Amino acid sequence: MSGRLSVVGLGPGGDPWLTHEASTLLGEAEDIFGYGPYLARLTLSPHQRAHASDNREERARAEAALALAAAGAKVAVVSGGDPGVFAMAAAVVEAIEAGPLEWRALPLQVSPGISAMLGAAARLGAPLGHDFCAISLSDNLKPWAIIAQRLKAAAEGDFVIALYNPASKARPDAVVDAFALLRALKHADTPVALARAVGRSDERILLTRLADVDTGLIDMATLVLVGSSETRFVERPGQPTLMLTPRTYGARR
Amino acid sequence: MSGRLSVVGLGPGGDPWLTHEASTLLGEAEDIFGYGPYLARLTLSPHQRAHASDNREERARAEAALALAAAGAKVAVVSGGDPGVFAMAAAVVEAIEAGPLEWRALPLQVSPGISAMLGAAARLGAPLGHDFCAISLSDNLKPWAIIAQRLKAAAEGDFVIALYNPASKARPDAVVDAFALLRALKHADTPVALARAVGRSDERILLTRLADVDTGLIDMATLVLVGSSETRFVERPGQPTLMLTPRTYGARR
Repeated sequence: MSGRLSVVGLGPGGDPWLTHEASTLLGEAEDIFGYGPYLARLTLSPHQRAHASDNREERARAEAALALAAAGAKVAVVSGGDPGVFAMAAAVVEAIEAGPLEWRALPLQVSPGISAMLGAAARLGAPLGHDFCAISLSDNLKPWAIIAQRLKAAAEGDFVIALYNPASKARPDAVVDAFALLRALKHADTPVALARAVGRSDERILLTRLADVDTGLIDMATLVLVGSSETRFVERPGQPTLMLTPRTYGARR
Repeated sequence: MSGRLSVVGLGPGGDPWLTHEASTLLGEAEDIFGYGPYLARLTLSPHQRAHASDNREERARAEAALALAAAGAKVAVVSGGDPGVFAMAAAVVEAIEAGPLEWRALPLQVSPGISAMLGAAARLGAPLGHDFCAISLSDNLKPWAIIAQRLKAAAEGDFVIALYNPASKARPDAVVDAFALLRALKHADTPVALARAVGRSDERILLTRLADVDTGLIDMATLVLVGSSETRFVERPGQPTLMLTPRTYGARR
């Protein structure tokens, strides 16, 4: 069997945040599967075939990619950000687990990417400088009770919280409910960043505090960062304000 | 003022996981500060100066880099993995906050990198496919009570847990105490991965279960991943076993 499959992270923006390994794997692939807008970011050679699918068809995309690799092709599946974080790597491994035995024999390479929270954190300075957690607000695949339990645990643990998929079409009120829950558990002055389209030309970063967050500004392209009790803003004349979660806990200025 | 400062993530391994932006920024820098072993990974031009320092001198390194940038130099500070995750970005922003006003006026660019947990997750398949948190076990900078509170919250929230700095010299028993705490709160069969030196030539991945973890195998180069109640292994004939946290919660096979 000569076929193989790679799952390649594109990072949250354009080429600057692509890794060298990702560029190499994309260049070697004969068939590239992905969500249409991600494929549109790539420059393909004439011998490469793009297979675009909708964002909701991750499992079917994974199965089609595995079937083609099992037939002998060099296949890549692309993912925005990091493929391991709420993205295509899990869909591919789930498909391998449930699929025919020959899929398990395929060489599989997951190539990491800059996840959205790392891109947003880079723009903001150092909001993830201390312990943090990442929670997807999409409840397509998990009940709201689990999301609420995790938000509560994240608040009790005083983690910085990164919220992914905050405006799922399946549950548009999730972000409203999530902020209601967080406001009941955390200080009103907790710093919050809404980082939209990070790394893209329409990037927009908004800094606010927990009591003032306008959830109407949060869409599916937004990564939300909610600070810990230690997180603070550092203002700079003529430069963007920074968001800092210091390395030292319990040593307020 | 013509000086500027970048804080550049090198990723956990060698060049393949470096981003294009990181390569560009390293090429443009006149002075590069960092922990000696990270600087040793770079190929510098004759016009570039390397300023190596010990791993425990992060704040002093940040201050020296800022002072040189304020004097007009193009300065880069390098960080293993992602500079925003338990690394140099927070040290730099803390130094800016506490330093002279001119440091706040400097252009600052944080360039994200592949954090160790993303590199480890890529090697393992998809252990971070669902909600997760990252906790540093180093208590140089925070009391053990906070670490314990966060481990407890992470277990109660049923997050996948990534443990950074698991074998701090300042508290070598931290990892033993952390596993004792996790074993009391989570199922004995919970999948655990010890991912050592990921992306380097001496990379070594060990898969086990919570009850069987040998903490003697965990050193400072090890990233520890502890699964959620949903995490499982997927065995493959002739290929490495995968670790999967599925996207769907509560749908056991």
